[in-house]
Amino acid sequence: MSEVGLLAIIFVISIIGLVAAFVLAKWVLKQDQGNAAMQKISNAIKEGAEAFIKTQFTTIALLAAAFAVVLFIGYAFLRKHIDTDPVGTSIGLAFWITLSFVFGAICSLIAGYTGMWVSIRANIRTAAGSIRSVNDGLQVALRGGAVSGLMVVAMSLLGVAGLYAAVKYFSAVEATKIPFLIVGYGFGASFVALFAQLGGGIYTKAADVGADLVGKVEAGIPEDDPRNPAVIADLVGDNVGDCAGRGADLFESTAAENIGAMILGAVMAAKVPDASPLWILGVMMFPLIARAFGIIASIVGIVLVRNKNDEDPMTSLNRGYYIAVVLAMIGFGIASYWLLDHPSAPQAWWHFFLCGIIGVVTSVAYVFITQYYTEYKYRPVLSIAEASQTGPATNIIAGLAVGLECTAAPIVVISAAILGAYYLGDSSGFEHAGLFGTAVATMGMLATAAYILAMDTFGPIADNAGGIVEMSQQPKEIREKSDRLDAVGNTTKALTKGYAVGSAALAAFLLFSAYLDEVRNYGVPLESVDIAKPAVFVGAMLGGMLVFLFSALAIRAVGKAAYFVINDVRAQFKEKPGILKGTEQPDYGRTVEIVTKGALRQMIAPGLLATLMPVAVGVLFRFVFGMGAEVVASMLMVGTIVGILMALFLNNGGGAWDNAKKYIETGAFGGKGSPTHKAAVVGDTVGDPCKDTAGPSLHVLIKLLSTITLVLAPLFI
Amino acid sequence: MSEVGLLAIIFVISIIGLVAAFVLAKWVLKQDQGNAAMQKISNAIKEGAEAFIKTQFTTIALLAAAFAVVLFIGYAFLRKHIDTDPVGTSIGLAFWITLSFVFGAICSLIAGYTGMWVSIRANIRTAAGSIRSVNDGLQVALRGGAVSGLMVVAMSLLGVAGLYAAVKYFSAVEATKIPFLIVGYGFGASFVALFAQLGGGIYTKAADVGADLVGKVEAGIPEDDPRNPAVIADLVGDNVGDCAGRGADLFESTAAENIGAMILGAVMAAKVPDASPLWILGVMMFPLIARAFGIIASIVGIVLVRNKNDEDPMTSLNRGYYIAVVLAMIGFGIASYWLLDHPSAPQAWWHFFLCGIIGVVTSVAYVFITQYYTEYKYRPVLSIAEASQTGPATNIIAGLAVGLECTAAPIVVISAAILGAYYLGDSSGFEHAGLFGTAVATMGMLATAAYILAMDTFGPIADNAGGIVEMSQQPKEIREKSDRLDAVGNTTKALTKGYAVGSAALAAFLLFSAYLDEVRNYGVPLESVDIAKPAVFVGAMLGGMLVFLFSALAIRAVGKAAYFVINDVRAQFKEKPGILKGTEQPDYGRTVEIVTKGALRQMIAPGLLATLMPVAVGVLFRFVFGMGAEVVASMLMVGTIVGILMALFLNNGGGAWDNAKKYIETGAFGGKGSPTHKAAVVGDTVGDPCKDTAGPSLHVLIKLLSTITLVLAPLFI
Repeated sequence: MSEVGLLAIIFVISIIGLVAAFVLAKWVLKQDQGNAAMQKISNAIKEGAEAFIKTQFTTIALLAAAFAVVLFIGYAFLRKHIDTDPVGTSIGLAFWITLSFVFGAICSLIAGYTGMWVSIRANIRTAAGSIRSVNDGLQVALRGGAVSGLMVVAMSLLGVAGLYAAVKYFSAVEATKIPFLIVGYGFGASFVALFAQLGGGIYTKAADVGADLVGKVEAGIPEDDPRNPAVIADLVGDNVGDCAGRGADLFESTAAENIGAMILGAVMAAKVPDASPLWILGVMMFPLIARAFGIIASIVGIVLVRNKNDEDPMTSLNRGYYIAVVLAMIGFGIASYWLLDHPSAPQAWWHFFLCGIIGVVTSVAYVFITQYYTEYKYRPVLSIAEASQTGPATNIIAGLAVGLECTAAPIVVISAAILGAYYLGDSSGFEHAGLFGTAVATMGMLATAAYILAMDTFGPIADNAGGIVEMSQQPKEIREKSDRLDAVGNTTKALTKGYAVGSAALAAFLLFSAYLDEVRNYGVPLESVDIAKPAVFVGAMLGGMLVFLFSALAIRAVGKAAYFVINDVRAQFKEKPGILKGTEQPDYGRTVEIVTKGALRQMIAPGLLATLMPVAVGVLFRFVFGMGAEVVASMLMVGTIVGILMALFLNNGGGAWDNAKKYIETGAFGGKGSPTHKAAVVGDTVGDPCKDTAGPSLHVLIKLLSTITLVLAPLFI
Repeated sequence: MSEVGLLAIIFVISIIGLVAAFVLAKWVLKQDQGNAAMQKISNAIKEGAEAFIKTQFTTIALLAAAFAVVLFIGYAFLRKHIDTDPVGTSIGLAFWITLSFVFGAICSLIAGYTGMWVSIRANIRTAAGSIRSVNDGLQVALRGGAVSGLMVVAMSLLGVAGLYAAVKYFSAVEATKIPFLIVGYGFGASFVALFAQLGGGIYTKAADVGADLVGKVEAGIPEDDPRNPAVIADLVGDNVGDCAGRGADLFESTAAENIGAMILGAVMAAKVPDASPLWILGVMMFPLIARAFGIIASIVGIVLVRNKNDEDPMTSLNRGYYIAVVLAMIGFGIASYWLLDHPSAPQAWWHFFLCGIIGVVTSVAYVFITQYYTEYKYRPVLSIAEASQTGPATNIIAGLAVGLECTAAPIVVISAAILGAYYLGDSSGFEHAGLFGTAVATMGMLATAAYILAMDTFGPIADNAGGIVEMSQQPKEIREKSDRLDAVGNTTKALTKGYAVGSAALAAFLLFSAYLDEVRNYGVPLESVDIAKPAVFVGAMLGGMLVFLFSALAIRAVGKAAYFVINDVRAQFKEKPGILKGTEQPDYGRTVEIVTKGALRQMIAPGLLATLMPVAVGVLFRFVFGMGAEVVASMLMVGTIVGILMALFLNNGGGAWDNAKKYIETGAFGGKGSPTHKAAVVGDTVGDPCKDTAGPSLHVLIKLLSTITLVLAPLFI
């Protein structure tokens, strides 16, 4: 098939994905919106979320614009053109890299916005649906989530393919060098994702912690009680943190990893003897085609989800997931045979197909490990619940131990996956195809990304629906239904977080292999990243340190922003004593505004640290020691390792604390209100900023490190 | 000077060190032992500590013996002799390596035992001394600590020099290859240190947490109250955890780093043109000579400490420290000029002298950074105290943020030190002398190790003295004096912990450079440790994971052992209701026995993980991928980086929580007994296993990783 044909397939399937998202959105919007009391709450959430997103996105856009200007000036005027540049002039290079960056940033903003837009409309409809039946609620929430999932994946694909086509037809760049120009797309996306996830994550937990500490602990009113001035801010938080943040995060993952895999594919294919230019192109396009097939598989899976015979809603969601996985793998096999088969290596295509299977198996393994460490059926969470009997201190100690321990199994799994995929690639019959093998495994893992993201966004929608049902004081049997969906939402959120770390870990290897290929492409003979050299070792230490410092800033940001919330809620209780008696209405908007400002101010420091430190290290070591590229590589690699460990620690530790509390609330060890429960609430609160702010931001940090080094590599050489 | 002359100097100074220790011990034992009530308590502590050490050391000795047998069989029969081996036969190699291992283990046991032996005798004399004056208490405690400090450093020096002489005169091994044979000494020492620190660390915190949770929290009796059945176990814990554990730890540091520096010195000196064999020998002996001079400097510093005009005891200790530092640096300069000067590089000696200064400056910087993060004069601890106002959850969140943040400055300092020392060495005029420069910096940092260890052991002695004064119900003005010493002890403990991490970080680079030299010496052309290779990257991930998993096991061990204590104390209160009324005597011995058993059982799992995982990884990757040495190297390096970060996090986080509580106890935010104080107590309890079990064990783990790979390198090739 010709290049045009390949691009056409990708474009058509991406557009199918967007159309499917549009159709699902229309379907969701057509659903019943419940009664006036519910709508009032829902409208308050909508307003709050939109106000936050507007301010946040303006800030991010300004930061991105500033960075774009610096990027352009740096490439066009400060850096000297060298012969190995993919474009003939410095201005040309600067133009394409900056264009990709800006385009990536814009697409990421759109992806984040859409996710939130649908989710704040799906929540009320899910609440109304769950009044009728669990199935109705489930379908609205999942399809609402799917809008965001499909949009993100389809748009990232369309963006990469579109940029490729643009460079191809408007410049004279060699096809295999195009990915080096469009890496800016991934970086633009990560740049936005980092701030979106940080801002959203800080917002959601500041509101949550603030609402809990004054509402539940001080005033003794239940969760989601309309008398709490921070309750709307808390519900808004679910949307801006989990939907907008995660949407931007996964958008960036799929974009960056597609481009990274294209780079590795192009490098490998170019070395195959007698390879026709078209075949090389096919290998390079393989990641995009495989992703496109995955979109179709995810659409089928989503549409088929149905809650039968009042089964556990999680079973219904899992059924849809397995359908999507099987279809995606069939598509993966077809794409492998079609694009990766070559007469010189007859067994190559199924070797790479197996790499894809490794990716899928890895994601399933991550899901199981996450379940083991965060569900109260198993030893870890039970040990925390047990330790809560002797007070908050032992609860925290037990949680720290669980969080630290839970890093072991995922690292073993990812090690096996990397080595297995590398070995399969290496023995495929192509030369130096090991790294491409790991890239294909990543593609396999991400094949069902759209479905996973739909499940993820399902979480906050169901959570919000539960809040609306609670606040509008519906009868108990309806609350039970919405609670069931809410509980499932908590599970899907935890699982998809596990999936996100797993894919970040696997993708990391792909991305820094791409970085090394890029550096070599610029003519630097960087054969190894030798951490036995002092400067390189120092780079590695700084990478690890960046992760610790970033986590510190992210966790502290929540504390600081929560502090404003606490003060405002206390002030409102004092100004209007009728609030607690239920005779006066709290000023929800004021609290929302305060969290918005607080969260946005707090996201700047960690965000700038993450973006500026790699640049500073690269430039410094280039000019002082003449080895910027290698030092940055080790910083990136060890930063990634430490980032994965820390993210697992924070995510699973936080999840385990959360569920230990929930387990006690089922009546164990004295149940709700007992001293054991109070101790467990402390752990839950501690876990909040860990699992919902710092942990998810670390996923983005890991990928940002990769994309920023990919984009700035020429400056470090 | 001839080889015999150099060795003679080292032997003579080591023996001076031992004699000084002996004289100080006699001086301490001559001091007044207080009244009968005090002696009764002191005897109970003595008995408990001795019982624990006896059981613990038997267990460790058995483990070490088993490991020695495996080591001997592995080298003598399983591994094939190769031409590059330093000894002619496999049996010969096995003999020397196993002998060094056993000798190192025995010396480490002796060092640990002596530290504790003196400390449990100095505590009562310090208590009696502080009845007279602060100066009397201070001098007894410091000189008691100095016995252990001098013993450790002198014995480690004597051991290395003695083994060197033994190999030299009983075999035909080339002088520059001897260090490869005696690396077993460092490994034997680390092996014992790991279990000693783990067992002691678990014991001390299990007893502490157990005593606090049931005594202070449940029964509402004050700390160190004689009615608490766990109170003696708590006081015993200070001796076995802080004295015996830290003694073995620092013994191992000095031993391993001496040998590592000798290896690097020999490699560098052999490359100098026209270098006479005697000059090469002098370079190789430089670390030992510099260390010997440091012993003299420390003795002078210790003897001169005197509390004048009722000044802050910390000022007196610092004055002694500065004297020791200045003298040690003068000795360092002399040794540099004498042994490192060579006609081919006239500026070399002062370059290396400056490296030594860098080492000293680094240790001072670490002390200041530790102070900043753990003292309540500064922002970090104050932020935790402030956060305690909103409850235990925000206290913990603030503490986590401080712990994570505090890793940044030390990493920057150590990076600058490594790069600076490397640059100075590299520009010394000798070829490839950069690594030796970092080794010399480490020597500079460790020059005053004996003084530092004396200050460190001062801590538990003063702590115990305070406990004895408290339990024997002395009048208030005496308690105030002993409390002042106790407070200073807490500071010195925290500072020396900072020093220990700093030296571990700086030494790490020295030790793995030595490892690479060793691997090359065995004929393997390992030119780089390239983490861009999949297997090497996997090794790096596994190294980072080991640190997390090890920390999890160490922290959990405290929880498990504390659980037994809690149950026993509750049982005793129930069995003898008169205890709380003060009419019945609790059975201290029973609790001591229970902690002993619990701590020893819990130390096995983390200890075996740390020793067996590097071996397993090295052997597996050797046979499956044929690259054991490189994979182990990356595991070691990244494990070290993550270990340093984690140790800083745990030590300083824990210290900050502790002092936030102490700050509130001075009356801030409501003072003792307020809800803020209760919240801060939670943080303090959480910090205990972090800063006194997991953190210090990580220092040992880092060095164990280095020494185990040094010893087993031939098996991975």
